[in-house]
Amino acid sequence: MIAGQGKFISLEGGEGAGKSTLLAGLRDYLEQHDIALVQTREPGGTGVGEAVRAIVLDPAQHGLAAETELLLMFASRAQLVREVIAPALRAGQWVLCDRYTDASYAYQGGGRGQPLERIAELERWACDGLKPDLTLLLDLPVATGRARAAGRGEADRIETEADAFFERVRATYRERAAAEPERFRVIDASQSPAAVLQAATRALATLVAEVRP
Amino acid sequence: MIAGQGKFISLEGGEGAGKSTLLAGLRDYLEQHDIALVQTREPGGTGVGEAVRAIVLDPAQHGLAAETELLLMFASRAQLVREVIAPALRAGQWVLCDRYTDASYAYQGGGRGQPLERIAELERWACDGLKPDLTLLLDLPVATGRARAAGRGEADRIETEADAFFERVRATYRERAAAEPERFRVIDASQSPAAVLQAATRALATLVAEVRP
Ligand SMILES: Nc1ncnc2c1ncn2[C@@H]1O[C@H](COP(=O)(O)OP(=O)(O)OP(=O)(O)O)[C@@H](O)[C@H]1O
Ligand SMILES: Nc1ncnc2c1ncn2[C@@H]1O[C@H](COP(=O)(O)OP(=O)(O)OP(=O)(O)O)[C@@H](O)[C@H]1O
Ligand SMILES: [Mg+2]
Ligand SMILES: [Mg+2]
Repeated sequence: MIAGQGKFISLEGGEGAGKSTLLAGLRDYLEQHDIALVQTREPGGTGVGEAVRAIVLDPAQHGLAAETELLLMFASRAQLVREVIAPALRAGQWVLCDRYTDASYAYQGGGRGQPLERIAELERWACDGLKPDLTLLLDLPVATGRARAAGRGEADRIETEADAFFERVRATYRERAAAEPERFRVIDASQSPAAVLQAATRALATLVAEVRP
Repeated sequence: MIAGQGKFISLEGGEGAGKSTLLAGLRDYLEQHDIALVQTREPGGTGVGEAVRAIVLDPAQHGLAAETELLLMFASRAQLVREVIAPALRAGQWVLCDRYTDASYAYQGGGRGQPLERIAELERWACDGLKPDLTLLLDLPVATGRARAAGRGEADRIETEADAFFERVRATYRERAAAEPERFRVIDASQSPAAVLQAATRALATLVAEVRP
């Protein structure tokens, strides 16, 4: 949290959990409350970030080392924080981000086995101390998420991982939510889109009340 | 140094110091001694690495944060070590690399002010412990190097930095050479190409004698 009145909200969850779907609903909700908003995503959101995204999702990059992947994710994030998120928050805008640092703990840590302490050390300096005010974790059984995501055509490099990988991702997300209950709100993502959105807006209402009393 | 008989040699120095020119001469020298060789460069040398190179040298990336640059350089390096350098050394080949980790200390550390301890921490895990057997530092006054490089057309993003930046790069390279005199050989790069090559092959002769007694 950097000085300024903008709020920083990240959306997390496995493949097909419904993050993109929820983001669209939250955007409408915040616009109804007249809250200026920046929507972005990880990896991506900047020129560098989108180049990084193209690399890490490319199925041809099957030889990408776990260390390389971790460094690329933080390179994308370091740029996103400085170029997009921090300036928006300073200007009083809210930021809705589709994945943030928790995703590195879940995917590069839990999924690929990179030491969590290594990720924490990168977080310390790469993110300039910027943590979300609220993180919505869309929690869903792995099989359900994969079935949903399967409808979208060719799998990217990460989607081709085995179920065990995504079970570790899910478990790591849940551990992080349990360890930081004030920041996280865990939402049962097996509910209908409307029910998920309602749970999310309930979580946001407290933050909205701070600026629109 | 990883198990196996290949030797790992890095070339370092400022812009226009003559690294590429020297590499061509060293390749001939090693071929004359019947030494199987892999030549590579940083950033680059792999699919990811060349994508990273395109980003960091692109003059349009003027907003690239120092943290992002550092992370991208180590992402390229982590992949190069695992995909190219370590396998070649294990197979008994020698590796000639145009820049390696010392360049991050010099450019991202000395040049851009990233803490040297941060770079050392990344080096510890990103490079898998792989250090060059020999590092040839082509040392040259900044003005001389810039005059040489100027002949090559449009400047890349790093070449557009001010002289003070390159003075810090040079000073950091020299400090590192002084701190690790067994690994480094400092070569006066203001000499003729032939004299530079001769100084370099003298430095290599000891390593060559180990495998071609
Ligand atoms: N609550 C829901 N119930 C049923 N289907 C849903 C629900 N939310 C989203 N979907 C559908 O599941 C699919 C994946 O949703 P979405 O793209 O929002 O997930 P995502 O978390 O953004 O996935 P990814 O991580 O791959 O970007 C889409 O076809 C979407 O319409
Ligand atoms: N010893 C030398 N004396 C004079 N000119 C040289 C010498 N070595 C190289 N040059 C010339 O200087 C220019 C730069 O040399 P080179 O490309 O080898 O440098 P470099 O260190 O690889 O530069 P960069 O870091 O930009 O890749 C070239 O035009 C080259 O022909
Ligand atoms: Mg999505
Ligand atoms: Mg060169």
